[in-house]
Amino acid sequence: MTTNKIYDLAIIGTGFAGYTAGIYASRYKMNNIIFGDIFGGQTAEAHIIGNYPGFEEITGGELMNRIRQQTKKLGTEEIMERINGVEWSKEDNSFTIMSSSEKSYKAKYVLLTIGMKKRKLNAPGEAKLLGHGISYCATCDGFFFKNRKVVIIGGGDAATTAALFMSNIASHVTLVVRGPKLKGETIWIDQVLSLKNITVFFNTLVTEFIGESKLEKVQTSGEVSEVIADGAFVEIGSEPNKEFIQKLGLEMNESGHIIVNQRQATNIPKLFAAGDITTNSNNFDQLVTAGGEAAVAVNSIFEAFQLEK
Amino acid sequence: MTTNKIYDLAIIGTGFAGYTAGIYASRYKMNNIIFGDIFGGQTAEAHIIGNYPGFEEITGGELMNRIRQQTKKLGTEEIMERINGVEWSKEDNSFTIMSSSEKSYKAKYVLLTIGMKKRKLNAPGEAKLLGHGISYCATCDGFFFKNRKVVIIGGGDAATTAALFMSNIASHVTLVVRGPKLKGETIWIDQVLSLKNITVFFNTLVTEFIGESKLEKVQTSGEVSEVIADGAFVEIGSEPNKEFIQKLGLEMNESGHIIVNQRQATNIPKLFAAGDITTNSNNFDQLVTAGGEAAVAVNSIFEAFQLEK
Repeated sequence: MTTNKIYDLAIIGTGFAGYTAGIYASRYKMNNIIFGDIFGGQTAEAHIIGNYPGFEEITGGELMNRIRQQTKKLGTEEIMERINGVEWSKEDNSFTIMSSSEKSYKAKYVLLTIGMKKRKLNAPGEAKLLGHGISYCATCDGFFFKNRKVVIIGGGDAATTAALFMSNIASHVTLVVRGPKLKGETIWIDQVLSLKNITVFFNTLVTEFIGESKLEKVQTSGEVSEVIADGAFVEIGSEPNKEFIQKLGLEMNESGHIIVNQRQATNIPKLFAAGDITTNSNNFDQLVTAGGEAAVAVNSIFEAFQLEK
Repeated sequence: MTTNKIYDLAIIGTGFAGYTAGIYASRYKMNNIIFGDIFGGQTAEAHIIGNYPGFEEITGGELMNRIRQQTKKLGTEEIMERINGVEWSKEDNSFTIMSSSEKSYKAKYVLLTIGMKKRKLNAPGEAKLLGHGISYCATCDGFFFKNRKVVIIGGGDAATTAALFMSNIASHVTLVVRGPKLKGETIWIDQVLSLKNITVFFNTLVTEFIGESKLEKVQTSGEVSEVIADGAFVEIGSEPNKEFIQKLGLEMNESGHIIVNQRQATNIPKLFAAGDITTNSNNFDQLVTAGGEAAVAVNSIFEAFQLEK
C-alpha cells in the first residue's frame, strides 16, 4: 500500500532526537511524520534521569511520554512500525519509506534519528538464555528479579545506574567490570561503591552464562570464578546499526557513526541525521546533545525546504 | 579580596548554557561556581517557550528557575556579579576571575557561556528615550503599557513573539519590519498575521524616536510616516559581546562568535566556551543547542581534569 500524500519530512526513529525534530518541524508548519518500532529509544529505558535541564529527576519513560504528547499536540503524525528501507524516487522528487508491514510513505526530506542498539557480550550461553534470565535492559526487566540475586556486566554509566536501580529490587547485585575502575558520572560511582548490597569485581571478564532452561550462574575470569544469579544484565554500552546505514549508502566513520556536517547533512542529498547515530557532539551521547542536533537538522531542512517553494 | 579556594571549574554566564554546565559539572563532582549579572540571560526574557522538549509551554523565567534550583541542589555555587576579567596565572596553575566588585576567584578551568546582548537600532532618539518608552525586552517591560499603543521593531522570532505577547496587553501593536516578510517559526508568523490588534508594516525603517521626556511617536520611512506610540520595543536580534572576547585574546569569526572546536575548546588552553556565543550548532541559537554545547564542553573539561589528577 502506498499513500499518495507526500510529507515534507519523514523522521525515522522514535527516540529523544526524533521527537525533538518533530517539535521543531511542526512549529515550522512542515507536514511531518515519525516512524519507529521502539518507543522512546534508549531514553525510555532509563529508570532515572538527573542531568536533563528542567527536571531534577524524571524517569526516561515519563520524559518521553511528555515529548510524545508535545509533538502530538503540535501535529506530528506517528507510525509505530519498523522501517526497512528508504529509497529516492526521481520521478516523484521524493523519498519512499518502506515499513516492515510493506506499507510505504513518501516524503520530501528524511531525517534519521535511529540511535544506537545495545551491545552484546557474545559470551557462551548468552544467546540461549536471552529472555530466560539474561537481559539488555535492567529498567525494562528488573522487576522480574525481586529479592533475587543478579549480575550486572559493565563499567560505565549504563552499568552503574542499572546496579543502583537493581539494588532497590534484588537481594544482591554483583557488578562485573572488565577494567580496573568504574567510568562515567562520579555521582553514580560513589553511590554504587557505598551500597552494602552491591559487590564490585574489577578486572574481571564474564566467560560463560550457565543454566539449562534459565540462568543459574555466571562464570567469570576473576578470583571468584562463579556467581550464582537468577538474572544477568549486560550493560556494556551501545553501537550504531551499521547494516541499516550501509544499505542506504551513507558514509560512516570507523565506529559506524553517520558522518554529518555542521548542518547535520549526510552525503545523500535531502537526507539528514541527528542524535547518537551521528559523528557530531563529540560523540557525547546525551539527551540534550541529541536534542540540539535534531534542532539544527530541522532548521537546515526548513531552510532548504523554503528555498524550493 | 581573593579567596584561597581553587575551584575546578568557573562558569561565566548565568543563562541556559551556564546552568546546564553546572548540572554536568556537579554530577561529575567537580567543584564549580557560576558567575553572572543577568540571571537567566535571554531565556529569562522569553515570555513563552514552546520548543523546549519536555514542556508544552513554559515561561523562560520558570524554566530558568527550575534549572537554577537543579544546579543548587547538586552543589553548584553561584555569584551574581558581573565579571570584568579572566587571567591565567602560571604560578597557581589556575585562572583568576575578577568581578566588578573587585573580588577575585580562582579556577583550574573556565567555561564561557556569556551568550549574546540585544542589538540596538541606533536610530536618533533611541539612547535618550531608553527606559522612557523604549525597551529591548517586551517580556520584561511590557506590562507598563497596558491598554496603550506600542511599536515593535523587527521581523524574526524575537519580534513576532514580542508582538504576540504585547497584543494581550497593549490596545494596539504596530510591527515595523525592515524586509518584505516575517522570518522564523511559521507558527508565530501565522498568529501575528491573524490578530486584529496587530498591524504589520513591511519594507519600513524606523528613522527616529520622538518625544520630550517620554516616547510620543515613532517616525518611519514607509507610507505611514509616523506612528503614535507610548512604547517601542526593539527586537532585532542579538550580537556577541566582542569587547569581552577581544580582551581575553580569544579567536572569533567575522560575526564576533568565539571559534570553538568539536570539543568546545577555544584557542586558549583550559578555557572553553558553549552556547550562543560560539560558532557551533550552525549558529542556530536554541535552548536545546546551547544545552548540548554545554554538556559537551563539561565532558571535555572533565576528561582533561581526570588526566591531570
